[in-house]
Amino acid sequence: MESGTGGVDRVRGVRRYAYLGPEGTFAEAALRTVPEADGAFTLPQRTVPAAIEAVRADEADAALVPIENSVEGSVATTLDELATGAPLQIVREILLPVVFSLLVRPGTDAAAVKTVATHPHAEAQTRRWLRDHLPGADVVFTGSTAGAAMAVGHGEYDAAVAAPIAGVHAKLEPLAEDIADNPGGVTRFVLLTRPGPPPAPTGRDKTTVVAFIRDDHTGALLEVLTEFAVRGVNLTRIESRPTGELLGRYCFSVDCEGHIADARVGDALAALHRICADVRYLGSYPRAGAAENKPLPPGRDDTAFTAAADWVRTLRNG
Amino acid sequence: MESGTGGVDRVRGVRRYAYLGPEGTFAEAALRTVPEADGAFTLPQRTVPAAIEAVRADEADAALVPIENSVEGSVATTLDELATGAPLQIVREILLPVVFSLLVRPGTDAAAVKTVATHPHAEAQTRRWLRDHLPGADVVFTGSTAGAAMAVGHGEYDAAVAAPIAGVHAKLEPLAEDIADNPGGVTRFVLLTRPGPPPAPTGRDKTTVVAFIRDDHTGALLEVLTEFAVRGVNLTRIESRPTGELLGRYCFSVDCEGHIADARVGDALAALHRICADVRYLGSYPRAGAAENKPLPPGRDDTAFTAAADWVRTLRNG
Amino acid sequence: MESGTGGVDRVRGVRRYAYLGPEGTFAEAALRTVPEADGAFTLPQRTVPAAIEAVRADEADAALVPIENSVEGSVATTLDELATGAPLQIVREILLPVVFSLLVRPGTDAAAVKTVATHPHAEAQTRRWLRDHLPGADVVFTGSTAGAAMAVGHGEYDAAVAAPIAGVHAKLEPLAEDIADNPGGVTRFVLLTRPGPPPAPTGRDKTTVVAFIRDDHTGALLEVLTEFAVRGVNLTRIESRPTGELLGRYCFSVDCEGHIADARVGDALAALHRICADVRYLGSYPRAGAAENKPLPPGRDDTAFTAAADWVRTLRNG
Amino acid sequence: MESGTGGVDRVRGVRRYAYLGPEGTFAEAALRTVPEADGAFTLPQRTVPAAIEAVRADEADAALVPIENSVEGSVATTLDELATGAPLQIVREILLPVVFSLLVRPGTDAAAVKTVATHPHAEAQTRRWLRDHLPGADVVFTGSTAGAAMAVGHGEYDAAVAAPIAGVHAKLEPLAEDIADNPGGVTRFVLLTRPGPPPAPTGRDKTTVVAFIRDDHTGALLEVLTEFAVRGVNLTRIESRPTGELLGRYCFSVDCEGHIADARVGDALAALHRICADVRYLGSYPRAGAAENKPLPPGRDDTAFTAAADWVRTLRNG
Repeated sequence: MESGTGGVDRVRGVRRYAYLGPEGTFAEAALRTVPEADGAFTLPQRTVPAAIEAVRADEADAALVPIENSVEGSVATTLDELATGAPLQIVREILLPVVFSLLVRPGTDAAAVKTVATHPHAEAQTRRWLRDHLPGADVVFTGSTAGAAMAVGHGEYDAAVAAPIAGVHAKLEPLAEDIADNPGGVTRFVLLTRPGPPPAPTGRDKTTVVAFIRDDHTGALLEVLTEFAVRGVNLTRIESRPTGELLGRYCFSVDCEGHIADARVGDALAALHRICADVRYLGSYPRAGAAENKPLPPGRDDTAFTAAADWVRTLRNG
Repeated sequence: MESGTGGVDRVRGVRRYAYLGPEGTFAEAALRTVPEADGAFTLPQRTVPAAIEAVRADEADAALVPIENSVEGSVATTLDELATGAPLQIVREILLPVVFSLLVRPGTDAAAVKTVATHPHAEAQTRRWLRDHLPGADVVFTGSTAGAAMAVGHGEYDAAVAAPIAGVHAKLEPLAEDIADNPGGVTRFVLLTRPGPPPAPTGRDKTTVVAFIRDDHTGALLEVLTEFAVRGVNLTRIESRPTGELLGRYCFSVDCEGHIADARVGDALAALHRICADVRYLGSYPRAGAAENKPLPPGRDDTAFTAAADWVRTLRNG
Repeated sequence: MESGTGGVDRVRGVRRYAYLGPEGTFAEAALRTVPEADGAFTLPQRTVPAAIEAVRADEADAALVPIENSVEGSVATTLDELATGAPLQIVREILLPVVFSLLVRPGTDAAAVKTVATHPHAEAQTRRWLRDHLPGADVVFTGSTAGAAMAVGHGEYDAAVAAPIAGVHAKLEPLAEDIADNPGGVTRFVLLTRPGPPPAPTGRDKTTVVAFIRDDHTGALLEVLTEFAVRGVNLTRIESRPTGELLGRYCFSVDCEGHIADARVGDALAALHRICADVRYLGSYPRAGAAENKPLPPGRDDTAFTAAADWVRTLRNG
Repeated sequence: MESGTGGVDRVRGVRRYAYLGPEGTFAEAALRTVPEADGAFTLPQRTVPAAIEAVRADEADAALVPIENSVEGSVATTLDELATGAPLQIVREILLPVVFSLLVRPGTDAAAVKTVATHPHAEAQTRRWLRDHLPGADVVFTGSTAGAAMAVGHGEYDAAVAAPIAGVHAKLEPLAEDIADNPGGVTRFVLLTRPGPPPAPTGRDKTTVVAFIRDDHTGALLEVLTEFAVRGVNLTRIESRPTGELLGRYCFSVDCEGHIADARVGDALAALHRICADVRYLGSYPRAGAAENKPLPPGRDDTAFTAAADWVRTLRNG
């Protein structure tokens, strides 16, 4: 595996991409940013669990689903699906700006918009705009923003709040663009495959794990986080999730900076393996977006780990 | 305020309850478990932000919205709405078992069910049952499970997967009950009011806060959690959330055991106030459900705090 | 009590100073640096316990004894005496450079020095000099360096390695000065009184405590130190000591920066009081020497503590 | 190297034992408990540094010196000598009960005892007994308890407070035995050799290290201790020591349970190597005395370390 190819090689053999559909969702827009997916089969799925299941069942080679801060689907669903069932692996993350358009059939003008269809989450993010610009229109909810656009295409409603890509599929055009009340929103998607070697480290990677604590004592989470902190591994996301077995028992879903091939990350995961009831490794992959990994504190790079291991080996042998 | 009334007094003056609607949702079912809401005005809202906004705008006195593990709406939305904007306060939590029924118009039998309407999240949780029992039916998505029931009532579809309460409103009857693939699911709702004195401590309380870290250094979360742990305060939920201002900056939404009136909890919040850029207190309220708060480690009860403060005062005075 | 007087007021009423004698020791040299001791009764004691006992028995008002890195006596003895028995309070610390002279009767030259008397610890610190400059002389041990000087004064030996002050008492003169093999050594002495109000804070203070852990579990010390660290209180010395009751049980003797009147220090001591079996406060006093207290991390000054306490009080009252 | 021989094999080749003399000290009594020293050359040294230097200079093969709670010499001296200079290795620890006798020339009775010679530390531990039983006697200090006994043998004084063994060398007999005011005192001695393979693990071992912190920031010690705690390694002694280079800079001398051959101990030492400016390993050796090592928390035994390392290796390879 060539170093520095950043996961590209991992998806070379992927020909069938499941994603959270229908066509025209933000998930499809995210999938279009993956160069290797160009020309591949894309398989829209009705739900996140369906997309994930498609990979587990070998009906797809990869699935693209939202994992954080989504307008389309629940973060919780993705996290819970990945924490249980047959193991899958994140090989890529994609950050997609959340950009909404008001889509109409060609020729519709603002005065003609009496009904606006969209998903509740999208409505929440464009409510002020809708109130200011279409005060008289009724808002109708649909199961997805893409579905809203399709319904507009079929003449059911006058306009849809949706991703720009939804207009392409539904043959709509934007009456207004970039209408989010608070611009700058981002949805994070992950590309999942069945387990295999991780993408090669790029020097700017992230790793995702789920830690099931051994017993639910006060300070259990602190112990888990301490294992990262002592090794200088910075966390970028943490979320406790009920395990479902029993209300009051928890697991922790964590993203950290670094690659499992990095000594400090591998060592932190090994520590979790020792102190947790179970640890599920969900993959190391290149970091998306402009943010940089934090500079390492002294003594946390691979050289320091190698030197320390050599020193102990020498002492043991006298 | 009488001790031991467990928040009841806090909602005594509440006459107008907003909730995540429409009528027939799990949120309405949760609201029906609040004795004080009996006979009050109930105001279904289309979205979580709308329900929250109703309280902020004094159009409602309280709002009931899902906050964790919901089948209806996004946890993230509720968390993010509470973390920003005018402060609100959680005065009660409600745990509602997730129970799905297959609702039909009276007289419909299984063989007649060709279309099943429901919300995508509900579909995900009943998929196996639907596949096994209604293999030939088409599943159609709607904006809410209650909306699905109403659509069945109007004759649009043959059956709805929804909360039992949805059948009451839509004049449907259950063809099958308890059809979740994994029974035991629970949604956690919170009842929000404008700020005021917290409900009296009951000895079995929880407290919710949002901590905005001062600068995003490695170990920042560990510092926040250490302030809870040293005081023996057990956490029951933690979630990092991007603050939205800038990708890569985070706040932490945390539930802990205990009441702000408890010395250890007040002391932990004071510590957070010192080390964080900002702390938003979201309320102390009686714990719902069967799980008990963890036994305190030695030296963390109010007596120990009082004795320690007295001791230091004596030493300072010589 | 005037602020900024740095403990001077605390020793105003002290008229009888016990110290680790005999006359001519480093302890006497240290005592001479205390302005208030000028003209007071000075009571040399044969041992550290005797000096400490003199204060407890009200035979002296204060005692000056070595506590760290001493050439005359054992740190351990002072620590153990302070950790048990009737409480005493440190009101001042004194750092004294360890400077040795080779003292002889007037008129003695190097060729005439056949025997050199000194305490074993002093010999250890001047051994190279003695070997290089007096290779033929025999070294004889005495119970103290001051005793060695007195013995030289009486004609028992030819020379003594001792503090310069020992020459004054024994009417000797230095044949060589500053003869330590490694110059720069410092002994730390403390001035002890019976309990009373601490010296006023100076902004550059230290505090000494002994913490007896509740049960000897793995990580017990970490818990103690965490209480200091979370409040930004820097430690300058730590030492575990067996409690004597039972081999394997320990207490920790700790010096930290700051004054018990500082919010962060008082708060840390209160925390120790809660989690420890016992805490013995040994005093807050001005820091001696050139080293400065570390800058406080953000949020650890008195203003932050007051603001945080006010904030919690407001929340509790709603 | 056979397992379970407890370091015996390490001292098989040792023929010359230096110890803190003179003959008749507690150090000699401790040396007599080492079976391998029977019949070897024993080389009494006047000071701890001299004993240590003898091994460094290959004039002795091993040195036995006090390291903790000594009545004869300073802990600090031993710790400081070991922390600097050519590396040495602790291969055995010996716990010796502190038992004092009142030694006299044969035929002397209590009424005839007008002068009692002893070392100041021994006087401190027998003061009450002396006051009660020999109220009229003068106490004279000598450089060691053994020296006091020799002086009594030479007729200089009437009685000596010393270790029973001192009577053997000086041909004295005990007038009273076990005269310590607080019985149960113990001195801990260590047997030092030049570096080499450590004694084989016995399952009940201790390890000693000195950690020089990289920069003297608030919380530096906490970081060092956390590396032990996360791996379930229990500390039995800790002491900060000024490094001598500059007042205010510190190193930490630490004893922990376990052997460097144990995965958790080697891993903790490797972590110290990464985060400290320097780490000096001073040896792993069988634990003396009746106290047992603490039971390990789950996940800290060698099996857990091996399983965790295997797991990470598998993940890295995919």
